[in-house]
Amino acid sequence: MESSTTTKSSVLPSGGGAMLMDPSDTVILLLDHQSGLFQTVKDIPVADLRRNVEMIARLATLLNIPVITTASEPNGTNGPLMPEIHELAPHAVYVPRKGEVNAWDNDDFVAQVKSTGRKTLLMAGVWTSVCVMFPALDARATGYEVYAVVDASGDPSEMASRVSLARFVQGGVKPTTTNSILSELHRTWARPEAADLAQLYGLVAPNYAAVIESYVRARQAAKAPG
Amino acid sequence: MESSTTTKSSVLPSGGGAMLMDPSDTVILLLDHQSGLFQTVKDIPVADLRRNVEMIARLATLLNIPVITTASEPNGTNGPLMPEIHELAPHAVYVPRKGEVNAWDNDDFVAQVKSTGRKTLLMAGVWTSVCVMFPALDARATGYEVYAVVDASGDPSEMASRVSLARFVQGGVKPTTTNSILSELHRTWARPEAADLAQLYGLVAPNYAAVIESYVRARQAAKAPG
Amino acid sequence: MESSTTTKSSVLPSGGGAMLMDPSDTVILLLDHQSGLFQTVKDIPVADLRRNVEMIARLATLLNIPVITTASEPNGTNGPLMPEIHELAPHAVYVPRKGEVNAWDNDDFVAQVKSTGRKTLLMAGVWTSVCVMFPALDARATGYEVYAVVDASGDPSEMASRVSLARFVQGGVKPTTTNSILSELHRTWARPEAADLAQLYGLVAPNYAAVIESYVRARQAAKAPG
Amino acid sequence: MESSTTTKSSVLPSGGGAMLMDPSDTVILLLDHQSGLFQTVKDIPVADLRRNVEMIARLATLLNIPVITTASEPNGTNGPLMPEIHELAPHAVYVPRKGEVNAWDNDDFVAQVKSTGRKTLLMAGVWTSVCVMFPALDARATGYEVYAVVDASGDPSEMASRVSLARFVQGGVKPTTTNSILSELHRTWARPEAADLAQLYGLVAPNYAAVIESYVRARQAAKAPG
Amino acid sequence: MESSTTTKSSVLPSGGGAMLMDPSDTVILLLDHQSGLFQTVKDIPVADLRRNVEMIARLATLLNIPVITTASEPNGTNGPLMPEIHELAPHAVYVPRKGEVNAWDNDDFVAQVKSTGRKTLLMAGVWTSVCVMFPALDARATGYEVYAVVDASGDPSEMASRVSLARFVQGGVKPTTTNSILSELHRTWARPEAADLAQLYGLVAPNYAAVIESYVRARQAAKAPG
Amino acid sequence: MESSTTTKSSVLPSGGGAMLMDPSDTVILLLDHQSGLFQTVKDIPVADLRRNVEMIARLATLLNIPVITTASEPNGTNGPLMPEIHELAPHAVYVPRKGEVNAWDNDDFVAQVKSTGRKTLLMAGVWTSVCVMFPALDARATGYEVYAVVDASGDPSEMASRVSLARFVQGGVKPTTTNSILSELHRTWARPEAADLAQLYGLVAPNYAAVIESYVRARQAAKAPG
Amino acid sequence: MESSTTTKSSVLPSGGGAMLMDPSDTVILLLDHQSGLFQTVKDIPVADLRRNVEMIARLATLLNIPVITTASEPNGTNGPLMPEIHELAPHAVYVPRKGEVNAWDNDDFVAQVKSTGRKTLLMAGVWTSVCVMFPALDARATGYEVYAVVDASGDPSEMASRVSLARFVQGGVKPTTTNSILSELHRTWARPEAADLAQLYGLVAPNYAAVIESYVRARQAAKAPG
Amino acid sequence: MESSTTTKSSVLPSGGGAMLMDPSDTVILLLDHQSGLFQTVKDIPVADLRRNVEMIARLATLLNIPVITTASEPNGTNGPLMPEIHELAPHAVYVPRKGEVNAWDNDDFVAQVKSTGRKTLLMAGVWTSVCVMFPALDARATGYEVYAVVDASGDPSEMASRVSLARFVQGGVKPTTTNSILSELHRTWARPEAADLAQLYGLVAPNYAAVIESYVRARQAAKAPG
Repeated sequence: MESSTTTKSSVLPSGGGAMLMDPSDTVILLLDHQSGLFQTVKDIPVADLRRNVEMIARLATLLNIPVITTASEPNGTNGPLMPEIHELAPHAVYVPRKGEVNAWDNDDFVAQVKSTGRKTLLMAGVWTSVCVMFPALDARATGYEVYAVVDASGDPSEMASRVSLARFVQGGVKPTTTNSILSELHRTWARPEAADLAQLYGLVAPNYAAVIESYVRARQAAKAPG
Repeated sequence: MESSTTTKSSVLPSGGGAMLMDPSDTVILLLDHQSGLFQTVKDIPVADLRRNVEMIARLATLLNIPVITTASEPNGTNGPLMPEIHELAPHAVYVPRKGEVNAWDNDDFVAQVKSTGRKTLLMAGVWTSVCVMFPALDARATGYEVYAVVDASGDPSEMASRVSLARFVQGGVKPTTTNSILSELHRTWARPEAADLAQLYGLVAPNYAAVIESYVRARQAAKAPG
Repeated sequence: MESSTTTKSSVLPSGGGAMLMDPSDTVILLLDHQSGLFQTVKDIPVADLRRNVEMIARLATLLNIPVITTASEPNGTNGPLMPEIHELAPHAVYVPRKGEVNAWDNDDFVAQVKSTGRKTLLMAGVWTSVCVMFPALDARATGYEVYAVVDASGDPSEMASRVSLARFVQGGVKPTTTNSILSELHRTWARPEAADLAQLYGLVAPNYAAVIESYVRARQAAKAPG
Repeated sequence: MESSTTTKSSVLPSGGGAMLMDPSDTVILLLDHQSGLFQTVKDIPVADLRRNVEMIARLATLLNIPVITTASEPNGTNGPLMPEIHELAPHAVYVPRKGEVNAWDNDDFVAQVKSTGRKTLLMAGVWTSVCVMFPALDARATGYEVYAVVDASGDPSEMASRVSLARFVQGGVKPTTTNSILSELHRTWARPEAADLAQLYGLVAPNYAAVIESYVRARQAAKAPG
Repeated sequence: MESSTTTKSSVLPSGGGAMLMDPSDTVILLLDHQSGLFQTVKDIPVADLRRNVEMIARLATLLNIPVITTASEPNGTNGPLMPEIHELAPHAVYVPRKGEVNAWDNDDFVAQVKSTGRKTLLMAGVWTSVCVMFPALDARATGYEVYAVVDASGDPSEMASRVSLARFVQGGVKPTTTNSILSELHRTWARPEAADLAQLYGLVAPNYAAVIESYVRARQAAKAPG
Repeated sequence: MESSTTTKSSVLPSGGGAMLMDPSDTVILLLDHQSGLFQTVKDIPVADLRRNVEMIARLATLLNIPVITTASEPNGTNGPLMPEIHELAPHAVYVPRKGEVNAWDNDDFVAQVKSTGRKTLLMAGVWTSVCVMFPALDARATGYEVYAVVDASGDPSEMASRVSLARFVQGGVKPTTTNSILSELHRTWARPEAADLAQLYGLVAPNYAAVIESYVRARQAAKAPG
Repeated sequence: MESSTTTKSSVLPSGGGAMLMDPSDTVILLLDHQSGLFQTVKDIPVADLRRNVEMIARLATLLNIPVITTASEPNGTNGPLMPEIHELAPHAVYVPRKGEVNAWDNDDFVAQVKSTGRKTLLMAGVWTSVCVMFPALDARATGYEVYAVVDASGDPSEMASRVSLARFVQGGVKPTTTNSILSELHRTWARPEAADLAQLYGLVAPNYAAVIESYVRARQAAKAPG
Repeated sequence: MESSTTTKSSVLPSGGGAMLMDPSDTVILLLDHQSGLFQTVKDIPVADLRRNVEMIARLATLLNIPVITTASEPNGTNGPLMPEIHELAPHAVYVPRKGEVNAWDNDDFVAQVKSTGRKTLLMAGVWTSVCVMFPALDARATGYEVYAVVDASGDPSEMASRVSLARFVQGGVKPTTTNSILSELHRTWARPEAADLAQLYGLVAPNYAAVIESYVRARQAAKAPG
């Protein structure tokens, strides 16, 4: 997995705020998005969860951001990883685990993260309160800047979801959502990938796809001879 | 639009209940699924609404059931029809209107319905309380058997949605949902289209797609040598 | 209050469904929309309720449909009628009551309804379960065709709201919503009032106002020289 | 329990609608409002439920309407009847049962109802789907006019609550709510009990109590010298 | 499966209402309660659904009411029947199907129902809108008295759940809930099974289990010497 | 207003945690609980809000804790203070304001607080986000220990309510609820006021009143001769 | 845009709390309130969102607080700014951007903010998690005091809304709501703008408009001769 | 109560994150899970609450983690402890209190905690805002690492539940949920208790039990000769 060649200085606006995520320093960790675990998710509809993860995979490919996936026992009850991730982000690297619930307990996984040389971790997974929370807290304690994408993750109850949000904040992890990371990595329309990025907004906000459809038709109708 | 050659006697189980929809007597009417109107729908997320309509289009193609679409002013503020319908059901016939809010007020539309020779109408549209309700009540008064697919339709509030349901029942229209019409038209797994139909269940119940993924992997793992 | 001169035959589409409301036979009854009672409404936000009633007043004026208002003790705790009604529908007739909770118990009110010669009553009020329900049931028993506009009305709990809906159906009253009566009376865009009617859709579905704004701007931008 | 001497002709408005409840023909049945059963109610907060029952007891006393109570095993796990009923409606008659779940299965209870000579039954109880539903269906089958006050009753889930409402309608029982029966029995402000009735509205709609407080203070302030 | 020997005349109160279910004429049909389908249920938590079905199985055994189960492709993606049913109701008869979605389309299933000689069908299953709805409508059309236990069943959305309820009523099927059928079959505490029945209330209303625990302890404490 | 003579050392358990509120150092501030403002509260039913405030007034009287009330323009649209406060806590001191929205901007109010010599402020009011928030932030900045009782307060939307909670935490104010302050001030059952305190639990948790009723009856029944 | 001449010392109460916003040091930033983006907002109804923004525009004009607006591509799919802002706050300054998602990445925008010389920023926009969050975090990092008005902003899901609130707190941004900033800037009724300010409360809490209507009528009735 | 002999170094992965709970340093405190108090819990269904507590008891036994229970007045209205705890965790130690609301005010309870020599406290109880909050804050102030398991606890309102979460974070207590502590203590599948632990996941996420059932059947079917 080679580091992205997109550097902050070349793409980001010159006045770029220091508080925001730097895509050239970011690696995406997708943890245990498995079909069996999906059945237990109760804080987001599984169709929305998968569409959000699909968006992240597409975004990573478009902006050349490294992706690392992992799964707990894909031949067991937890089931296989959702196939969309590796289909849409063929550059993603899969790291098998040896039974550890917490991916950060797996040396291979941590080594893969370190090999990217990046210090900003963007994590999502199922369950939020476990598969995201544990490595997020550990990585944060190690000094990484950690973002948890809560709507590309899932928890087994609304109550667990609220608790996860509170515990992220308490532990110094930055909670975020899929639409927000799209915009935060997107950063400006004055870039070559703008047209492709525009399509992704219809995934994080399905009404936006209809906004585009109406807009295109209105322009066509306006320009039609008559 | 030629009538389906699938007859009830040939496919349906011999003990088939008289109460259920007969696919060979059914025509599907998709009314005003337009991008501008989608923004006003508040009783179902627009992504779910579109996925349900997509399922109906696929099902109609698979089972060779006629589809008639219509739209109010697609060059105006209401916007274009969602393109998935005619892409997935290329046999669908589009009937433009002349300003009538109620499709049943349009002679061409009614004529197109009559030309199918079928007496069971399966309707969906936006708004449920208007674009579905008005032709449904009129068609019912004319003697048709009418089903309203409420989750392939949309209303501007939860309250409107509840009222629509009550008014359908009051007017002799049968309310139903996308998953139910899939099963009602499907009727039996002992038919050639069974494998294709199975895929459609993942659209009406996204968790079911994950159920299939887990099942396939569990069988693969069980059969793997080792 | 003179009867509307708009007749069904002249405006409605020739194929007009017999099931739908005939504007030339309709009178609108607005019952006890009073500021004190508004505080007790819990099934719809008071801003939405007032906007829906405002739409009805505008629609009545635009289509020349008679409106009758009444209030219980406007100098008492129930407070004054919301002023928008008579401001926006200056042709509305106000009938004071003599203490009767049920407007149909008041002879003047019933006489005013009868004087219109119309047989279709479109009722809204606060509370739905009382101020609408009682005259609705009585009028229905007398032979009127009665519609209850539930989102231009209000009830003191969600439970009361659901019960009102059920009891309307049980009693032969047709429940409906503001967006639906707008469309049902509107009936066709091929009429002189079309442009004015279009504006009213932004009241029953506020997202539609934004749809129009986007549409107008998209057309302007498309036509701009460049 | 002597029948109320208030007759319809003497108090009700002369134009009184035939569809509404006649207080002189009504008896109130309060079924199993017991402290143990209250813990299982999930479709209404228990404080609201008790306040609604309290209102009914006060109303019955004020309008001299007979009340019959019953309980299943008050010395057992179901617990005692809420004491407010007999405190506020001292004329209420308590009928013990012999183990029957359905009060209508108890001969003493049915006899007590018959002894009133009244044909309109106003029922409330816990659970709605059992303690109200069963006698309501039986009484309706016997020819009584039956009203079920659903918010002076309670069911063990929201789903049960919705089902109860549907089944009441299906079985010819009229569902209603506490605020509605107050108004339906109240009927007109031109009666001697008006001032006492006004106080009861603050129980069925607590915001109304604050409306009254504001009104009284505004009048005092307006009349104050200065 | 032999018919229950409990006859209505011997157990039910002499004044027993004709509207209620007669246990000696009832057969319970449990349709497609399968682990794969459970994942798609969205109108009731799966733990509650299973506990309600468990209660029905226990009740059937206790009152000697026949139970018929069936499943669609238990070796396929839909998964096995929940094992609790046959464990708790060992007298239940399982009828395999030949691919029919609607159990009433399967001749063996209908024959098994007919063999009981009973005319009241108590149905539950997953999905409510399909596996319960279709045979319910067919059986009703054939002349059976049909009850649908909606909280021992499951639908893939809240909207589908509301639609199912409306369509049951429209089709002459009686909707009910688990707590209600327990009480309706229970009928009186003056019967030998009373103590066993009491335990079942803690399943349909978990707070009731705590009510019993408090009651028992309070009595023990009161009787303790001191 | 004399300071409470109850000292921490005399009543609190010897191991008392330093983190909890000390009743002898506490003064209760009830801000703008006015009938007109109550109509705008949307995050708690007004009946619950008033019952919670009533509990606080009773508790203050029982434990001899000073209470200071204030109101903005009680002769104006905001309406009078709810009368229960001064009825149930006759020792409460009312401080009129001179138009200041923020009570802490009023010198008389601040002086009254200071005169108690207490350093722990327990605040509640309408709106939470204004009438509680502003003095809470100011008092906290001045060095007071501040608790905000959010369910004895009210905000005009659920969103405002969530924001208030976050801003309290951000500003160093401790959010709490009525049941919690009852228990925190109660501290131990081994005190003379225990019986009176027990009654207050039925106000903060109405189900608890029914728990007590069941308990008392169970003991009576157990002890009855038989 | 000249700085307001209203100084804190002249208008605010002498005891004014240091924790609250100082209007003379405040500038309002309204970010991307565009018709196309409005369609994607799911945490607040668009009618409420617009009414809240309208209130802010009116308030800014009334109190002479500078307003800066900006939009991303108003000729594109995002659509035009809602026109109410510049209509109601004609002194507002619009700053076009050059494609930057984050307004703080645009040098012109930051320069405009700096030119006011004010250090307190009151921000609202669509999406909250992007168009408000990014400049809010950047401005906070630069040393500004930043308030985010979450109900004059909008996010594409309830989950995103909750996450935004948490991230504001985490990042040192103060979350607030429209009603709260009205009161915080209002500060005292003893000021010349009091009558105009009073009208604005009916926008942030629509029930308050009805409170005023009742109050005025009650006073009129009280003073009427009779 | 002897300390667990399972040491972190022997079971936990070598790369174990320092941020996570260490089972060998943990003691579980279950506070006031009493039948009377259960009736007042409104933020979680009592069946779910008991199942979560049951899971904790099983987990403690499986991993040999000390458990201390306590109750307030089990012979009084609060009722007895739920019996499942001591049945499933026979090693649990019960500490009676002397009237203290806050268990940390009871010297025996604190002594029992200290006797374990462990510094990580995992607390759950009813009410969360009282019986968990008070000892959690006190223990945290004393230097313990404290986790509050909010879904094995219960509060009397949703609002109280949200406030408790905020106050835990404010006070340095770590909020968590039952599924999370299962995974956090589980830590790795490469341990002897793995099979037993797997069963517990069906308690914290009931859908997972069905996932396992489907998986087992799919494997059986795949391996069956055919």
